[in-house]
Amino acid sequence: MSTTVSPLAPKKYPKMPAIEGVRIATAEAGIKYKGRTDVLAMVFDEGTAAAGVFTRSKCPSAPVDFCRENLSGGKARILVVNSGNANAFTGKKGRETTTLTGQAAAKAAGCTPGDVFLASTGVIGEPLDAGKFSHLLSGMVKDARPDQWTEAAKAIMTTDTYPKVVTATVKLGDIDVTINGIAKGAGMIAPDMATMLSFVATDAPIAAEVLQDMLSRGTASTFNAVTVDSDTSTSDTLMLFATGAAGKRGAPKISDPKDARLASFRRALNKMLKTLALQVVRDGEGARKQVEVTVTGAKSSRSAKRIALSIANSPLVKTAVAGEDANWGRVVMAVGKAGEPADRDLLSIWFGDNRLAHNGERDPNYSEAATSAYMKGDDIVIRADIGLGRGKATVWTCDLTKEYVAINGDYRS
Amino acid sequence: MSTTVSPLAPKKYPKMPAIEGVRIATAEAGIKYKGRTDVLAMVFDEGTAAAGVFTRSKCPSAPVDFCRENLSGGKARILVVNSGNANAFTGKKGRETTTLTGQAAAKAAGCTPGDVFLASTGVIGEPLDAGKFSHLLSGMVKDARPDQWTEAAKAIMTTDTYPKVVTATVKLGDIDVTINGIAKGAGMIAPDMATMLSFVATDAPIAAEVLQDMLSRGTASTFNAVTVDSDTSTSDTLMLFATGAAGKRGAPKISDPKDARLASFRRALNKMLKTLALQVVRDGEGARKQVEVTVTGAKSSRSAKRIALSIANSPLVKTAVAGEDANWGRVVMAVGKAGEPADRDLLSIWFGDNRLAHNGERDPNYSEAATSAYMKGDDIVIRADIGLGRGKATVWTCDLTKEYVAINGDYRS
Repeated sequence: MSTTVSPLAPKKYPKMPAIEGVRIATAEAGIKYKGRTDVLAMVFDEGTAAAGVFTRSKCPSAPVDFCRENLSGGKARILVVNSGNANAFTGKKGRETTTLTGQAAAKAAGCTPGDVFLASTGVIGEPLDAGKFSHLLSGMVKDARPDQWTEAAKAIMTTDTYPKVVTATVKLGDIDVTINGIAKGAGMIAPDMATMLSFVATDAPIAAEVLQDMLSRGTASTFNAVTVDSDTSTSDTLMLFATGAAGKRGAPKISDPKDARLASFRRALNKMLKTLALQVVRDGEGARKQVEVTVTGAKSSRSAKRIALSIANSPLVKTAVAGEDANWGRVVMAVGKAGEPADRDLLSIWFGDNRLAHNGERDPNYSEAATSAYMKGDDIVIRADIGLGRGKATVWTCDLTKEYVAINGDYRS
Repeated sequence: MSTTVSPLAPKKYPKMPAIEGVRIATAEAGIKYKGRTDVLAMVFDEGTAAAGVFTRSKCPSAPVDFCRENLSGGKARILVVNSGNANAFTGKKGRETTTLTGQAAAKAAGCTPGDVFLASTGVIGEPLDAGKFSHLLSGMVKDARPDQWTEAAKAIMTTDTYPKVVTATVKLGDIDVTINGIAKGAGMIAPDMATMLSFVATDAPIAAEVLQDMLSRGTASTFNAVTVDSDTSTSDTLMLFATGAAGKRGAPKISDPKDARLASFRRALNKMLKTLALQVVRDGEGARKQVEVTVTGAKSSRSAKRIALSIANSPLVKTAVAGEDANWGRVVMAVGKAGEPADRDLLSIWFGDNRLAHNGERDPNYSEAATSAYMKGDDIVIRADIGLGRGKATVWTCDLTKEYVAINGDYRS
């Protein structure tokens, strides 16, 4: 946890309401960090449905394996998260830790280990001793309270400089339901998945299959469209829990992803996922500027996304943004290296509203002064039109600064 | 051109011999840089054969288009290179510049424009005025001398901190032939191609088709196996010229790539290409350490190379090396994100001779002290064994330092 808050941090944070059926506790276990919380327990009432999306890494962490296995049940009673140690690439010991933690959590919550979900974030390759925090769980479950969402977001931070929270209240049928979400970044962020950890919960009565459908679709243009450094974590985990408590107040039970009554909920969920994903970008290690990259006119939207990611992951584009330099030649380079269909002589490039390049050369009306002024802002929008088709995609990243190098040059030591 | 020479620069430079049939001149045209040479003319005797390998960018520079077209003739009489402006993404104006420069160079050398080769390196998107240097060419051709190879390497530098030269003398038949090479980097370096500009010449009498075959094969494990920042230039150009002058001294004419008499020549050429490619890496922008990444035990050598590049291009691996931190967990991450077949529980990782991870977890015999000492060296060797097959590949990169960000944050301004 850095002492300097990102200049892109939200100006204000929402007051997080309770979600009926969810209770939260945090604790200081001293796993790695001192003087801050590093364990989160989120306790769910019986009947809570669960969905999840996980890293596509071929070397996933032990907790990711554990969650994937339990997700087939579609039910959750407790989520336990620790920061400071990722329990990744820890072999047999790692599996023993998830087994022991799962048993302790199940005992604390009065459920079976199959209803437990686990996540760990922090250093890779160091064995994580379950004994450091599993003895705290029964006390945490007893003390858990509904109003601890911001505390939850704080407990899961690593190099994040601010906690990431979001909330929305929407109608499901005629009944108000609430959705809360938290997330943490802040390096090793790339599709797919593009956050290390994010957890969303609602009191809406929605079946696990429907949650999974919404979550999988919702990540494509949100968490899977952000990149800080192109490095995909071993531990990326996004989970969505629905307690169903609003059913008692008359909210309809939803068991079909095509149910028309889901429209507002789905819109709100997607917006929240995007807000959390952008908060992760805006807290990217060393970030001083947010960069939105839109590619239009590509052969397909898949091709557009690949070109957009080639631009967003280019160290030369990212350092130019850090230097407030409208170096659109590097965008040309990044389009050219993407390996996707492109024709140099049809390409146009904008920084904000400033069109710098058109039909394969510098725009004759391009104003260096106006563009330089634009580059001084916090939010930079880059657009490249490929001129070949109708494919379109938007991704988000941050600039690459000396602070990124400083943060990552001595993180482990 | 930086004022601080890379700490990885060669301790001594070879004295570059003449290549019979090649004369060189450099000049100060003031295209962008002041007080240094920025134009190179390399003049070849009649009968010189040429081969080339160029960037795979979909947005190549105008000189790359020009060279590709002329290469079909297989003959060269003059090469003109300028630094300070890449003549890339310059549209119709860019083509006019290559046409005018080609005509001026042909007139100066007494040949047709089809025997001219051009290369430009520097900023992208700024029109390059041929008038700034084409009037110098006839004087340069007159003044050209055989002993100017190091001067040639200096004239093509951009952010390079030292000139890159290499030479070898080998037997072709019973006759000594000489090969000289120069190159420049130093950012926007990634496969494929992985140098901005490199030119190699020999007095051996070798046909253009044979040169092309050797060059294309030779790049795979040399220039196409190095990466500084994963960013592929629009201008990458590697050319090989053979004057054939050694034929007068009795060297055999080679017109078949399978000719057994080529063996020493091919070995020497490949070694030179590797030396030049590594010099580019060792002068990578901000580089303080060279990193060799070898992947063994992959499903195929193609898969091994992809995994090796995933490691070599990872900002988190590169910043860890910069911080002298043996953070092998980030190597696990990079293997996992490569998208290639891998099994976490079979993976082993070495830094130098120190095995840090074995069979999916930290090596019990791993010594933090020994590994930390190892990380302080200039040359870091990372090896990952995937444990699945016999595929093997080696690539080279450098560390990612604050200086890289500083150099690229204000290069254009």
